[in-house]
Amino acid sequence: MPTKTPHPTAPRPTPPLREIRKVLIANRGEIALRVIRACRELGLRTVAVYSTVDEHALHVRFADEAVCIGPGPSSQSYLNIKNIIAAAELTGADAVHPGYGFLSERAEFAEIVQKCKLTFIGPDPGHMRVMGDKVTARQTMERSGVPVLPGTGVLTSAAHAVAEAERIGLPVILKASAGGGGRGMKIVRDIKLLPQTLQTAQVEALKAFGCGDMYLERYVQSPRHVEVQVVADQHGNANHLLERECSVQRRHQKVLEEAPCSVLSEALRREMCAAAVAAAKAIGYHSLGTIEFLLDGDRFYFMEMNTRVQVEHCVTEMITGVDLVQEQIRLATGEPLGHLMREFRPRGHAIECRINAEDPIKFVPQPGTISALHFPGGYGVRVDSHMYQGITVPPFYDSMLAKLIVHAPDRQQAIRRMQRALGECVIEGIQTNIPLHRWLLKQPAFISGKYDTHFLEASLDPEAVRAEADAEAQG
Amino acid sequence: MPTKTPHPTAPRPTPPLREIRKVLIANRGEIALRVIRACRELGLRTVAVYSTVDEHALHVRFADEAVCIGPGPSSQSYLNIKNIIAAAELTGADAVHPGYGFLSERAEFAEIVQKCKLTFIGPDPGHMRVMGDKVTARQTMERSGVPVLPGTGVLTSAAHAVAEAERIGLPVILKASAGGGGRGMKIVRDIKLLPQTLQTAQVEALKAFGCGDMYLERYVQSPRHVEVQVVADQHGNANHLLERECSVQRRHQKVLEEAPCSVLSEALRREMCAAAVAAAKAIGYHSLGTIEFLLDGDRFYFMEMNTRVQVEHCVTEMITGVDLVQEQIRLATGEPLGHLMREFRPRGHAIECRINAEDPIKFVPQPGTISALHFPGGYGVRVDSHMYQGITVPPFYDSMLAKLIVHAPDRQQAIRRMQRALGECVIEGIQTNIPLHRWLLKQPAFISGKYDTHFLEASLDPEAVRAEADAEAQG
Repeated sequence: MPTKTPHPTAPRPTPPLREIRKVLIANRGEIALRVIRACRELGLRTVAVYSTVDEHALHVRFADEAVCIGPGPSSQSYLNIKNIIAAAELTGADAVHPGYGFLSERAEFAEIVQKCKLTFIGPDPGHMRVMGDKVTARQTMERSGVPVLPGTGVLTSAAHAVAEAERIGLPVILKASAGGGGRGMKIVRDIKLLPQTLQTAQVEALKAFGCGDMYLERYVQSPRHVEVQVVADQHGNANHLLERECSVQRRHQKVLEEAPCSVLSEALRREMCAAAVAAAKAIGYHSLGTIEFLLDGDRFYFMEMNTRVQVEHCVTEMITGVDLVQEQIRLATGEPLGHLMREFRPRGHAIECRINAEDPIKFVPQPGTISALHFPGGYGVRVDSHMYQGITVPPFYDSMLAKLIVHAPDRQQAIRRMQRALGECVIEGIQTNIPLHRWLLKQPAFISGKYDTHFLEASLDPEAVRAEADAEAQG
Repeated sequence: MPTKTPHPTAPRPTPPLREIRKVLIANRGEIALRVIRACRELGLRTVAVYSTVDEHALHVRFADEAVCIGPGPSSQSYLNIKNIIAAAELTGADAVHPGYGFLSERAEFAEIVQKCKLTFIGPDPGHMRVMGDKVTARQTMERSGVPVLPGTGVLTSAAHAVAEAERIGLPVILKASAGGGGRGMKIVRDIKLLPQTLQTAQVEALKAFGCGDMYLERYVQSPRHVEVQVVADQHGNANHLLERECSVQRRHQKVLEEAPCSVLSEALRREMCAAAVAAAKAIGYHSLGTIEFLLDGDRFYFMEMNTRVQVEHCVTEMITGVDLVQEQIRLATGEPLGHLMREFRPRGHAIECRINAEDPIKFVPQPGTISALHFPGGYGVRVDSHMYQGITVPPFYDSMLAKLIVHAPDRQQAIRRMQRALGECVIEGIQTNIPLHRWLLKQPAFISGKYDTHFLEASLDPEAVRAEADAEAQG
């Protein structure tokens, strides 16, 4: 059991236990339902907030209370801090769960929640700021002994960038200090193109994030995205709940996730998980968090930390038996890690497919009305979804309709179970990426487990995916 | 690991491994889907059979092939052995899975299947005969040292019955030798009434089972129904997969099941499970089987053996991590127990609610069309169901619509998870027993775990169940 070590730079007095009775969920879709389920099982009351287009959403139906916070566009509802806080005060909620996306990583939102004497179900705003600035996060991790790729601080000029790129060695990757999630990145393979690329990237970053600061890192040709789930309490204890493999991506968006990662040796798993716990402890972190690593052969490097629950948290729940959202709420009340301080070992294998409303080849979102719906069931199958037959999927939000999760004794059985489950999934009226998943689950590279973050885009075969779509339509 | 002991009275040569490629499922409803899922995950092809009213059933849709075997009434379709065998021959199936109910415990069906050179996915017909005759089963168990209640063989006269009842002590229970599943039983508390009751019971048994043979057993006032899941191969190996608690019953029909049983001490669990393995070995049994015990305080007695997969097998799957139907198919090919020979310990707690199409107070079946349907999802929730929005539930078959199963680290968390899941379950257009389950899950006797087989009928409060139904309608 790791020892309780007070954070060296920011020791805090142990906060008193806060009691939570009613939780406002500042989100929508499947994650709002996920939080409602956790609350209900903990005996907590729930308040949903919703935009006018979500009036008939399941999170509104299943919450104890619901408050409309504005029109469809996110900026006027799910990102409208004033209306969300007003809803919390109106209903007497004493805690706010931000879900993922929307306001979940906005430090100023967490600060306002706390100023209103509400419990923010997440880390301190300070943690969100440190990890939100990618250069600061990199430097903090480097100082704490967590491996980072050879790279730089904020670039001060084109000449600075060229000198640093020569030191690091080509190819390099330009990243926005305020970026994250793969946005605003540019690979540079020819040193002569660096000054021009830097200028373009700065303009884009300024436009996207309000900050043009850029930095450089060594570019890894064939990386895997492996992330570690960490949990930490407000008393200096931190632990990990093993890793997730998230290399099946398209346009830096995760498409399918697994736990555990099938290519990690036990020694490498221990090393990576220990580094993740060290990363959390380095900033005195508390709550749930995810440390994303880039895996290059048997070496790994810190990429970024997500200071919230992840979409793919479910695969970790399946192989650890821990309800992460219930634990997140519990930790927010100031409770110690307790039973989470044990050593976790993977129990079987879990896979999650993100089912999106989109053209499975062009990846264009497809809002519309679901005319027929049947989700798979049976042993080892979990569905997290806010869909029902007759729902209209609005165009304003992300296109995820459902997370289809399977659990089995080993990876090969999990793959077969997912193939079986995808075969039972019926969604009519809108296009989905189910044909893509059916195709993906048959690919030898996927089945062998030997793939990297480029695998999906490099091997995507539109004709084969179309054939899956046609077979589905006839099925 | 138990040693491999050849059966003393009926040693068999080790049969050659039979390869199965295509399985005909001689059943309908959720269990037909359950078997299709297991087959698909094992890479086996499937043949569904269906009656004309089941033309649009999901087992027809999800099987690789489907053959209509007759009109709605079971006698003309799902009990029509000739048509089922013809369907197997027509499609080139090489194995038959009988599910539960229908032909699953008819020894003559298993015999015909085997005579047609098809693999019967179940035990030998001889096992089914021994266990189908309750007097023979009792005597076989007694000889093998498995505890049975003080009782008799077949009663030869009223005088014989009176003498035996005086020896056993009142109250006693009259049971039909050909009965089972609680049918045709009569409690006798006054010795003067025994001759008349015997006569009535004989007439009823003759009518129901074609055989008027009756026997007596001591009547236990406050029993629990606890059953042990056994698995056995064709090489003399047998093991158990822990117990299930099935005391929540109405009219001898199970309503809700749990695993493990919350009132068993570890010592009693070991003793009961060992007795169940001894019972299976006593008859050289192979395949899945369930030994039902009557638990009276800390003593238990053999009641009967079910020689097929049970409706409630799912709760065992949740706490053991074993896919019982896949294993049943594997064992039918002659494979040894292998990984099932380990010692199982309960992993958390599981509860199953049987969702029936019935009036929740009068328990009258309610066929009809489901106009809106939403099943619960999320962590720890499993749904096994053949329902979809728009399906018409025919009047010919049993009224079960779905099995709602939850799994959690302990019983209290499982109860809260089931309460949450029931709260999300929406079935409109027909009446269901969901209000009964909602009421049941709140009862202090249920929550405490201290209940017996009389609990549900003795404490049922129609007004309170009606209030749950009203709350659901408004929800």
